[in-house]
Amino acid sequence: MNMPFIPATDAKRTEGLDRLLNAKSVAIVGMSSKPQSAGHIVLRNLRENGFSGAIHLVGRTPGVIDGLTVITDMAELPAGVDLAVLTVPASSVEATLDACMARDVGSAIVFASGFAETGEEGRREQERIGARVRAGGMVVVGPNCLGFTNYAAGFSITFVGVNKVPAMPEGTRDAVAIVSQSGGLANHLRHGLNSRGVAVAYNISTGNEMDLGLGDFVDHLVDDAATRVIMIYAEDIRRPDLFLAAAARAHAVGKPLVMLFPGRSPRAQEAAKSHTGALAGDYAVMKAMVERAGVHLVETLDEFMDVAEILSRYPAPSRGGLGILTFSGAFCGIAHDFCADIGVEIPSLSQATESELKSLLPAFISPKNPIDLGTEAVWRPELVGAGVAALLKEPAIGAVAISIPIVSPAHAKAYVEQVVKARGDSVKPVAMAMLGDQLPLPPEFVEIARAGKVIVSRSSDRVLKALARIVRQPDVTTPAPATRSSTPLRDLPKGTLPEWLGKSVLEAEGIRIPGGRLVRTLDEALSAAEGIGYPVVIKAQAGALAHKTEAGGVILNLADADALAAAWSTLNANIARAQPGLVLDGVLVEKMSAKGLELVVGGRRDPRWGPVVLIGLGGIMVEALGDVRLVAADASRAEFVAEFGRLKASKMLYGFRNLPPVDVEAAADVAVAIGRLLQATPEITDVEINPLMVYERGRGAVALDALIVSTGS
Amino acid sequence: MNMPFIPATDAKRTEGLDRLLNAKSVAIVGMSSKPQSAGHIVLRNLRENGFSGAIHLVGRTPGVIDGLTVITDMAELPAGVDLAVLTVPASSVEATLDACMARDVGSAIVFASGFAETGEEGRREQERIGARVRAGGMVVVGPNCLGFTNYAAGFSITFVGVNKVPAMPEGTRDAVAIVSQSGGLANHLRHGLNSRGVAVAYNISTGNEMDLGLGDFVDHLVDDAATRVIMIYAEDIRRPDLFLAAAARAHAVGKPLVMLFPGRSPRAQEAAKSHTGALAGDYAVMKAMVERAGVHLVETLDEFMDVAEILSRYPAPSRGGLGILTFSGAFCGIAHDFCADIGVEIPSLSQATESELKSLLPAFISPKNPIDLGTEAVWRPELVGAGVAALLKEPAIGAVAISIPIVSPAHAKAYVEQVVKARGDSVKPVAMAMLGDQLPLPPEFVEIARAGKVIVSRSSDRVLKALARIVRQPDVTTPAPATRSSTPLRDLPKGTLPEWLGKSVLEAEGIRIPGGRLVRTLDEALSAAEGIGYPVVIKAQAGALAHKTEAGGVILNLADADALAAAWSTLNANIARAQPGLVLDGVLVEKMSAKGLELVVGGRRDPRWGPVVLIGLGGIMVEALGDVRLVAADASRAEFVAEFGRLKASKMLYGFRNLPPVDVEAAADVAVAIGRLLQATPEITDVEINPLMVYERGRGAVALDALIVSTGS
Repeated sequence: MNMPFIPATDAKRTEGLDRLLNAKSVAIVGMSSKPQSAGHIVLRNLRENGFSGAIHLVGRTPGVIDGLTVITDMAELPAGVDLAVLTVPASSVEATLDACMARDVGSAIVFASGFAETGEEGRREQERIGARVRAGGMVVVGPNCLGFTNYAAGFSITFVGVNKVPAMPEGTRDAVAIVSQSGGLANHLRHGLNSRGVAVAYNISTGNEMDLGLGDFVDHLVDDAATRVIMIYAEDIRRPDLFLAAAARAHAVGKPLVMLFPGRSPRAQEAAKSHTGALAGDYAVMKAMVERAGVHLVETLDEFMDVAEILSRYPAPSRGGLGILTFSGAFCGIAHDFCADIGVEIPSLSQATESELKSLLPAFISPKNPIDLGTEAVWRPELVGAGVAALLKEPAIGAVAISIPIVSPAHAKAYVEQVVKARGDSVKPVAMAMLGDQLPLPPEFVEIARAGKVIVSRSSDRVLKALARIVRQPDVTTPAPATRSSTPLRDLPKGTLPEWLGKSVLEAEGIRIPGGRLVRTLDEALSAAEGIGYPVVIKAQAGALAHKTEAGGVILNLADADALAAAWSTLNANIARAQPGLVLDGVLVEKMSAKGLELVVGGRRDPRWGPVVLIGLGGIMVEALGDVRLVAADASRAEFVAEFGRLKASKMLYGFRNLPPVDVEAAADVAVAIGRLLQATPEITDVEINPLMVYERGRGAVALDALIVSTGS
Repeated sequence: MNMPFIPATDAKRTEGLDRLLNAKSVAIVGMSSKPQSAGHIVLRNLRENGFSGAIHLVGRTPGVIDGLTVITDMAELPAGVDLAVLTVPASSVEATLDACMARDVGSAIVFASGFAETGEEGRREQERIGARVRAGGMVVVGPNCLGFTNYAAGFSITFVGVNKVPAMPEGTRDAVAIVSQSGGLANHLRHGLNSRGVAVAYNISTGNEMDLGLGDFVDHLVDDAATRVIMIYAEDIRRPDLFLAAAARAHAVGKPLVMLFPGRSPRAQEAAKSHTGALAGDYAVMKAMVERAGVHLVETLDEFMDVAEILSRYPAPSRGGLGILTFSGAFCGIAHDFCADIGVEIPSLSQATESELKSLLPAFISPKNPIDLGTEAVWRPELVGAGVAALLKEPAIGAVAISIPIVSPAHAKAYVEQVVKARGDSVKPVAMAMLGDQLPLPPEFVEIARAGKVIVSRSSDRVLKALARIVRQPDVTTPAPATRSSTPLRDLPKGTLPEWLGKSVLEAEGIRIPGGRLVRTLDEALSAAEGIGYPVVIKAQAGALAHKTEAGGVILNLADADALAAAWSTLNANIARAQPGLVLDGVLVEKMSAKGLELVVGGRRDPRWGPVVLIGLGGIMVEALGDVRLVAADASRAEFVAEFGRLKASKMLYGFRNLPPVDVEAAADVAVAIGRLLQATPEITDVEINPLMVYERGRGAVALDALIVSTGS
């Protein structure tokens, strides 16, 4: 898929976005005479919220609506209106956008559905119109969107219901902005945030994104003073370049991005396609790329809401494990299981903290994490404060979760006051999961907690999961300067390269391959083997020989000249039988490699995200389990070493059973080289080294096979 | 560990339990003069709740408390009091219980801590006293417990706070009874259930269980008319036989058991040990056993509460996938991902249902599961009813989840009325996850939902997870009558059996082994090979030869007599070098088996739960991933076939890549045979067939190795 190139810093688009979100003049195009029609609802929303700018109505029937004259010809529209709101059907969208551009309109919203979400034809139509408006210099939201609300300016452009926009207090600096490819979900998020006392700055539904997309809005919101956190609901990141650039800017200014992106499962991808015309692509590639850019990629609706709330109060990164304080011995075991399941540590306390806690707590309370205060704290709320303060001081702890019962309103108040005091101005998130399920909380409890930035929840599952997501945020990495650069390869043949050629490409990139030579006669083979040293392997070579092992074209472990001679005949007979008439490039004679641990390192060019490297353990079992990691092609050695450690079967790498610890660093170097190769030579679409034989720590790794596919130079 | 045998149907214990939970006379033993002491709080709880039975006070200081005379000598206690409440320290517990038995007290509660949770000495002390009271015919709850509340009788025996017991309405038939090894957690559960409008019948804290345990209480509650669901918090099932017998009775009368049991992780097991002296044992074994008995084993606190509420309204089993109805296209994708993660189906609708839905829904709404009504249903609540009714009719759907927004109180009411009407008297759970997070729900909404048995939640994550747990409940299996019975083996040597002997044991059990013979000389070997047919394998045999492969005692794939002769010398030299002086039983000459898929089938004797069978795929990778299943030794072939399908890498069994589908049924037969062997011969502690080579479907499985450990006959 070829994406049109759109510079991220186009001044005209930036201005267009500003005219959209802070419109001072609006034209509603497609006014009908029916009071329940979309145009009327858009108008009523503007009136309801006291929109102070100019409003123009354009329709087919002349008349006066709500004191405004309906004009019937776009040519009569004053030039330079900020925002045109199109309430016309899909079939009229293109002509209307043309007319808007003719009147120098700054931006437009298209509500109509009937584009990419309906199939290929609709997609092509949408792309064509998108290209047209970009060429014309106007920015467009939609189609198939619900509009947006600007809570600072206090107005809403939407056709679904008429609502008074709750004003965001002036001077707000900790609001959440919502950018969503689903308008319905955006409303849920907005209600949810408000119900938790979190301000919302913008609620933007982007729909099918014929022009403006997630990246444009995120980029804009990075500079918005009220916005501290940006929530992104995505079914398709249509322009990864823009999105990643915006994410990098957000990261640089310390504004967290939280994203939910359904599409881990094939059926979710199908659903997204018929919802917003999304071609979600490969979730694992997207995940690798956005997490590396610092995006908090969540997996469920609960997590989405919980993480956004916590980050709105604690935007600074805070990594580590969880500190836990409870009144219940049972909760300690429950939390250990839960945290083991979701993969977050409950770190042991340092000796200093243990000693300090011992002096503060009664002797029968063990100064361990989780701290179980038992029933003692019911009557001594100051113990809660002492425990929280101690946990927050631990460097290995990134956030603190407190699970306590509502004994009585007075008790609850005392506890939360202790927690607020102990928290001070810590940047580490502190959350209270109040037991009792739906048992109502005293209102003053919630007020004190919010004023003190303490997160309140009714579910310890949710608290632990959200905090875990935050403290385990992957590091945002600026790729290290490459230790060597790759020269783009020239004159690659088209298609699958024969192994000998693939291996020469790998070798040029600094990857170890077995000693060997391409030969054409048995004499050459014998002389090659003599030079390399027995035992050797022989492998038939030809680009057109797809499955050389299955064809009997690979014979291993030849101990001497006799064995080699016998194998030479066998191999040629096998090939003649399997693929009659095939002319071989020759036969590769190679040193038989020692047994090590088999890994797979490969790479491919994702149509959206560009080159990615794949790493995994070798063998069919791993394939059956899908235990591989996808990593950006410009990842560093350290990133790859970390990624090997994230394989489900990573135990195998570090000295499991009788296996020695293997040279993960050498395997990482191979991955770095593959990444470099993919970046330098765009003609290469796929690389696979399977197996990469990796040896004991310090002994390196050798590529035993090489599969490289090229589009030809 | 040897468990004392306690018959489940002991009439005296049954009577004791009844006298405990429905006590008509109570003695509080250990009254001090301090008004805040435990005895006073127990008394105040009885008074607060208008306990109408006799109350006796026993203390060291004579006097009158609250109009009651404190007696100082247990001998003065009237004989035959129902319940003695011991508020004495740990050191006085034994003597006090003796005194109670002397006065023919029916039952006792021991609050004191300082027993098994403190370590081995405390554990022995506790076990000794437990044996003593059992011999004396009195039932005892505790030590280290918080007491219990009987909501039907309206009284509470506890020393933590004074509370008015909310009365359970007479005639209640859908209450939940809580039996918990943690009193603190039990209170949380009780508050949580009440906050959801679910009645609680009993709240019982069992603590360290020196005498009465989970099994006793569950057994008792099976016959309680008010109790529909039993919630069990366990850190240790001390008497699996009692517990499983009680679970079977509960299943027979249709009362679901829901259990939370921390201990999946080693740190949770440690926490339980210091909390209630639990020796949790092997979680996987426990899980295999209790799930087979029909227990809903949940993993988190949220699930515990959610599943219990749903079962209290929908106790009948309802298996299948989930039907989903939503107003949001985004939710379809989100739900697909979530359900794929938790492993529950969203079944496609039948043609009949699709046609029916088409006639009821507007043309632009696709009659698929999930049903996405879009914004259309905002104005047409009857579409919600139509959708729910259609989903409930589908046989493949076990429960229905509805995720819709709170548009307005009037809308919300209309939706829930539609859902209640559509539900009718369906036994399939129906739950509404109302979007908007903490945005308050109209009170009438909750009332209508509860009256109509519709579950209300604020989290779609929680709804989907709880419903998934319910619809995926494993079948409760009554073991099929064995197709053959095993004769207990006699004269087994102690220790690890040599392979040839192990294989003969397997063969006697009907498991296929390679053709072979134990020989002592090369001549015998040659003649054996001649008989079997080449290629053959030779394997050195001796009980004292632990790692025969590492010692060079296994040589594979010998093609002819020459190869066999050469290998014979090599093998003997290898053994002489590896273990000088070792006298072999002989050498096993075996037919070289064809390559198939390697599985592992084994078994062991769990100290608590008895024999269990382990199945898995072969290879070190599987070991690194822990991808095995534990299954009861009396499981049927069908159960084992299903368990093979639950392996994470089960794809390998059904024709993955170039592999053919393998003979899972044959592997299941081997597992059945191993289970039978373990049941019939208690001397066998461990069995492992690694590998069990399994071939294409219909071609069976062969045990290539056999490791059997015996305690000796």
